[in-house]
Amino acid sequence: MSGSTFGKIFKITTFGESHGNSVGVVIDGCPAGIKISHDEIKKFLARRASNSKFATQRHEPDEFEILSGVLNNITLGTPICVLVKNKCFDSKKYDAIKNIFRPGHADYNYQKKFGNRDYRGGGRSSGRETVARVLAGYFAKKILSELKIKITAYTYAINKIFIKNIDCAPQENFLYMPDRTAFKKAREFLKSCPEDDSVGGIVECKIKNLKAGVGEPVFDKLDAEISKAIISIGAVKAIEFGSGFKSAFLFGSQNNDEYYFDAKKKKVLKHTNNSGGITGGISDGSEIIFRAAIKPTPSISKLQNTVNDKNQNVKIKISGHHDKIIVPRISVVIESMAAIVLVDQIFLSCCSQIKRIKHNYFGW
Amino acid sequence: MSGSTFGKIFKITTFGESHGNSVGVVIDGCPAGIKISHDEIKKFLARRASNSKFATQRHEPDEFEILSGVLNNITLGTPICVLVKNKCFDSKKYDAIKNIFRPGHADYNYQKKFGNRDYRGGGRSSGRETVARVLAGYFAKKILSELKIKITAYTYAINKIFIKNIDCAPQENFLYMPDRTAFKKAREFLKSCPEDDSVGGIVECKIKNLKAGVGEPVFDKLDAEISKAIISIGAVKAIEFGSGFKSAFLFGSQNNDEYYFDAKKKKVLKHTNNSGGITGGISDGSEIIFRAAIKPTPSISKLQNTVNDKNQNVKIKISGHHDKIIVPRISVVIESMAAIVLVDQIFLSCCSQIKRIKHNYFGW
Amino acid sequence: MSGSTFGKIFKITTFGESHGNSVGVVIDGCPAGIKISHDEIKKFLARRASNSKFATQRHEPDEFEILSGVLNNITLGTPICVLVKNKCFDSKKYDAIKNIFRPGHADYNYQKKFGNRDYRGGGRSSGRETVARVLAGYFAKKILSELKIKITAYTYAINKIFIKNIDCAPQENFLYMPDRTAFKKAREFLKSCPEDDSVGGIVECKIKNLKAGVGEPVFDKLDAEISKAIISIGAVKAIEFGSGFKSAFLFGSQNNDEYYFDAKKKKVLKHTNNSGGITGGISDGSEIIFRAAIKPTPSISKLQNTVNDKNQNVKIKISGHHDKIIVPRISVVIESMAAIVLVDQIFLSCCSQIKRIKHNYFGW
Amino acid sequence: MSGSTFGKIFKITTFGESHGNSVGVVIDGCPAGIKISHDEIKKFLARRASNSKFATQRHEPDEFEILSGVLNNITLGTPICVLVKNKCFDSKKYDAIKNIFRPGHADYNYQKKFGNRDYRGGGRSSGRETVARVLAGYFAKKILSELKIKITAYTYAINKIFIKNIDCAPQENFLYMPDRTAFKKAREFLKSCPEDDSVGGIVECKIKNLKAGVGEPVFDKLDAEISKAIISIGAVKAIEFGSGFKSAFLFGSQNNDEYYFDAKKKKVLKHTNNSGGITGGISDGSEIIFRAAIKPTPSISKLQNTVNDKNQNVKIKISGHHDKIIVPRISVVIESMAAIVLVDQIFLSCCSQIKRIKHNYFGW
Repeated sequence: MSGSTFGKIFKITTFGESHGNSVGVVIDGCPAGIKISHDEIKKFLARRASNSKFATQRHEPDEFEILSGVLNNITLGTPICVLVKNKCFDSKKYDAIKNIFRPGHADYNYQKKFGNRDYRGGGRSSGRETVARVLAGYFAKKILSELKIKITAYTYAINKIFIKNIDCAPQENFLYMPDRTAFKKAREFLKSCPEDDSVGGIVECKIKNLKAGVGEPVFDKLDAEISKAIISIGAVKAIEFGSGFKSAFLFGSQNNDEYYFDAKKKKVLKHTNNSGGITGGISDGSEIIFRAAIKPTPSISKLQNTVNDKNQNVKIKISGHHDKIIVPRISVVIESMAAIVLVDQIFLSCCSQIKRIKHNYFGW
Repeated sequence: MSGSTFGKIFKITTFGESHGNSVGVVIDGCPAGIKISHDEIKKFLARRASNSKFATQRHEPDEFEILSGVLNNITLGTPICVLVKNKCFDSKKYDAIKNIFRPGHADYNYQKKFGNRDYRGGGRSSGRETVARVLAGYFAKKILSELKIKITAYTYAINKIFIKNIDCAPQENFLYMPDRTAFKKAREFLKSCPEDDSVGGIVECKIKNLKAGVGEPVFDKLDAEISKAIISIGAVKAIEFGSGFKSAFLFGSQNNDEYYFDAKKKKVLKHTNNSGGITGGISDGSEIIFRAAIKPTPSISKLQNTVNDKNQNVKIKISGHHDKIIVPRISVVIESMAAIVLVDQIFLSCCSQIKRIKHNYFGW
Repeated sequence: MSGSTFGKIFKITTFGESHGNSVGVVIDGCPAGIKISHDEIKKFLARRASNSKFATQRHEPDEFEILSGVLNNITLGTPICVLVKNKCFDSKKYDAIKNIFRPGHADYNYQKKFGNRDYRGGGRSSGRETVARVLAGYFAKKILSELKIKITAYTYAINKIFIKNIDCAPQENFLYMPDRTAFKKAREFLKSCPEDDSVGGIVECKIKNLKAGVGEPVFDKLDAEISKAIISIGAVKAIEFGSGFKSAFLFGSQNNDEYYFDAKKKKVLKHTNNSGGITGGISDGSEIIFRAAIKPTPSISKLQNTVNDKNQNVKIKISGHHDKIIVPRISVVIESMAAIVLVDQIFLSCCSQIKRIKHNYFGW
Repeated sequence: MSGSTFGKIFKITTFGESHGNSVGVVIDGCPAGIKISHDEIKKFLARRASNSKFATQRHEPDEFEILSGVLNNITLGTPICVLVKNKCFDSKKYDAIKNIFRPGHADYNYQKKFGNRDYRGGGRSSGRETVARVLAGYFAKKILSELKIKITAYTYAINKIFIKNIDCAPQENFLYMPDRTAFKKAREFLKSCPEDDSVGGIVECKIKNLKAGVGEPVFDKLDAEISKAIISIGAVKAIEFGSGFKSAFLFGSQNNDEYYFDAKKKKVLKHTNNSGGITGGISDGSEIIFRAAIKPTPSISKLQNTVNDKNQNVKIKISGHHDKIIVPRISVVIESMAAIVLVDQIFLSCCSQIKRIKHNYFGW
């Protein structure tokens, strides 16, 4: 498997199985001179950790260690390796499913691809891998923050309960839903759901204050790269930008965003944002907006039919405490991946005009 | 702009502006020994060309020329360059919009990124660029056909008219809709639509007979790469796999696909296919299925508000004959991009096990 | 064969067989806003063409055509495809060696790798492929010239006749030797060499006025990338930087370059330049200097032993007029490849410090 | 710095500063199913460690830890992270040179590129970084060994003392010289060298039993990739293949390797090997042979002139015990890098013919 690296200039490589020694990331191409904070990383990581009674009971403190690339809390420009040791788990409970392929999981797929697999907790295909993405996301967000760019992802829907009016910060509640009414509904809904089943939802992500002109046509378009980044997150099964699937049902005159010049702000603006801030794969200076569908967690304790590695039909009941819903936890992963894409694409755009290159080079 | 190359081993690089000298592609990494046919290419290209009265009137015969990589109709293993000259068009009509940014188009975005742009017919951001993708798609499909793998994309919806029962081949009608009833409805709907406006829709793509084990976790997952490839097509604003956005509304027990061993076929199969044939980024041997939302063509002759390059608010009426709908034409582009991803990922999977490598190397 | 692309941001892809339709290059990642001149390209290309009675008699006017990426002689930032049609040759003369593997050529190697090959004039492995490199080199050199950086390559030795005192411009004579005495000696030597044999030599390349800080440790070091670029030229069998192979025979105290601050020039300088301007893979602001060994052209009309594709031992006498020496012609290829590496590495260095990125981004 | 990744399918990413927490590597694309041994790794690593009184006294036990990608000593196909903690060193001694740029080192270069640097022991530019390459090299060599391919690198020259007759295994003596007479001479020479200075040399590397047809023209040629890999090792200043620089002084008829068919061995062989086993960037089935020049270690205790970061001219005397010669230690690094290149190129060659792909795919 050679697909563990993402990015062209700001490049991350992740490693680690769910129940192996550790999970980690190497960030290569992070510029020198960025001040980082261990407390900030801890806080950022905590967003990914189990934050409700509907989430997994595995208590992972997720203590990280920076192994390289940082001196006195300043990045050196050299590769940054950050590690989280795996602990507090019992791998033996997986012995029972060692030879059984769990429905909705990638057990069967890994077995077919590699001829063997780490069966403990999903191994490399576990959601645990996303801890490495969030660690990298922290560094990407630091860079964006230096450029005054802001990314936020939050719960847009839990099952069919959608947010309507954004009236609070997502972090105000444990479902990461920026709509108090929707939050309450969703909380009641989750309570009422069977204990042995799981629930899906939708995450929305917004990027504010990105300049126009970022994105590399024709294949490495900003939306194309974001799509790859987001769909590469295990539980995501769909993505849409701006009006997305709804655009299929609109007329051109409805879906086109008309430009106007705002004399006060001295800026070209748009009346609508059906494009989600991207046309032709390049940002237009308006808000980037996309949504991702999160499938219900496949780990459920309900009895399911499946096969084992001897091609026998068997029944499986996944024991242990698993997340009833991962939608709130996944928002920080989506935010991280979007940040990683943005940084890489901004770096690439530094060289799109000879004027920019001269401005840069002669300023060294 | 450095994003004009796609793929790792089977690698394509496209070039060309809509009204420049030509549009073309270099395919690097196409294996030696594949027999190709000029007639087949012509036929395949024709699927992309205007095929109805609802489509653009620009009559492009799209005559291609193979400049390298093929000798006596057999691929050499060296890079294959295929060229289509641009002809039969009048660039002068674009003089009127030279300094105006068309809504829904990438004019403004290119100007911001590059500081200049080819304003004639959208330049590099024109749909014309897809002719290069289709040319490459032909070669990818030839490889897949050697491996007995079959890809088909077709119109799934035009505006809100969805196919229901697949009762004919897509090529039977000019809307490429494999449902006769839906086709008739859609045809009437299009007739009734205003002449100065345009219509969107959805394309569905199915890949049959792909073995389990294809896809590179964790970033270069099969679905992640397909997403990037499909979203990189200008008009596509969304993609979903299997149950897609609907999976957000399902319980885990509904969305998980249960496996069973079919004793007759001697194969592990699934009762459902909500995963769309991919879990953990790796194929499971069932059908790959995804859908893409196509926005309505932005080129409409209706009067629209916009700005020019002097930051003045102006009105624009795009003249000339433009596609009222491009959904039927885009299916072959989607098919091509999916084929290109598949070939690349199959090549990568040749090296996932030491057993496979030995089998290959000692067989040279 | 998937190795026809070079570079990360400034990326070139070449295609074309020696006796196929054409040879060409796609340059992706060339910044917008560069003014180019057809006359300059013509002149630059001419340096590669046969320029003496010791070189091949194939009269290739090498007329190029720019197919994309340039409008009104200004680069658009989109991929630039430049083509040279192959003409004025007779492929039939190669029928005689269709099934025979020429010593010193890559005929046998291609046959083994691909199972077939274009036997006409060496196909893809012909020196003709370098025309594409030179075309790309022109664009790279234009960028460097905007940054005041100058690259020059010239004949350093022909057989054992080395230049000693640089007393003229290389272009003053047809051997591209910037030492009049050495040139005369070399010319006499070449006259005295058997007509049915060929001669090798050494090319030296110097890069002036490059700032310190360019190069990407640890694998994509400036010298590592230059090495790959130069060794990838067919006839090159060795490369050395600064004191090169001689450094093996020096003591540390002899080989280390001592720094000093020049108060007048307000610059850190070095007393010597054994490093060739690069340490740790990064430029130090002094002159970059390297040398490449060019093997004698393998095409000789002397009778040679070899095998054919039926594993029979046969004799071969390569007919036609071939270069007795290609050293003078290859300097422009080396210059081009070095320029391509430099541009790419300078672009990458634009993002090595957060300070630079902010300077660039906020200046858009 | 984004250059810390090497390879296309078999891809390594290294990280770590000399006196930071640790040095490590992530190997992505290592096939599943390879049995590894901790003892073998230990032994292989030991070859890189100080092995003579002429080498550095820093006693690094180099205890490694495998963090991922291996289960029960079998590779999983997922990324393998291997770590070596840095220990047994005193960083404080570097305080004295914190602001001074050591001649022959990359201190100045890093400062210019990144604006800051880890001054302790050379930081990222230290030879310590090569421990990560050797760890990756172990896995590459395991793959080659499955394919019956053998790589050996050894001391070819120490200063001007060259090996002549290979009469012993390199590991027989601490200079890794496979010629007993040369070894004794070199040992005496080293004894006689001043204590405050250092010595360079040449390493030769041979690859036996590689099939014909490996290498990706035109840029990713086997020799081009090896050159990049080897020149990327800090101390290497030159590389040559086969007759190398000497080829510049030969006639074509001398330098061309004539083929013949050996009826007994049923193989196409060559009478000579001036090409070093590679023509047109592709292996020909004969031995691959190349040599690399190793500059004398720049760390010497002799007094040297240099500048500090305030642009003041100062004198420096590097204290501590440093290697008088690193040539014997570097052979395993060269062997490792060559192995990494070979594995990657063999993997790529698995897909050069449709015949091979079908053979592979239908054998899954």
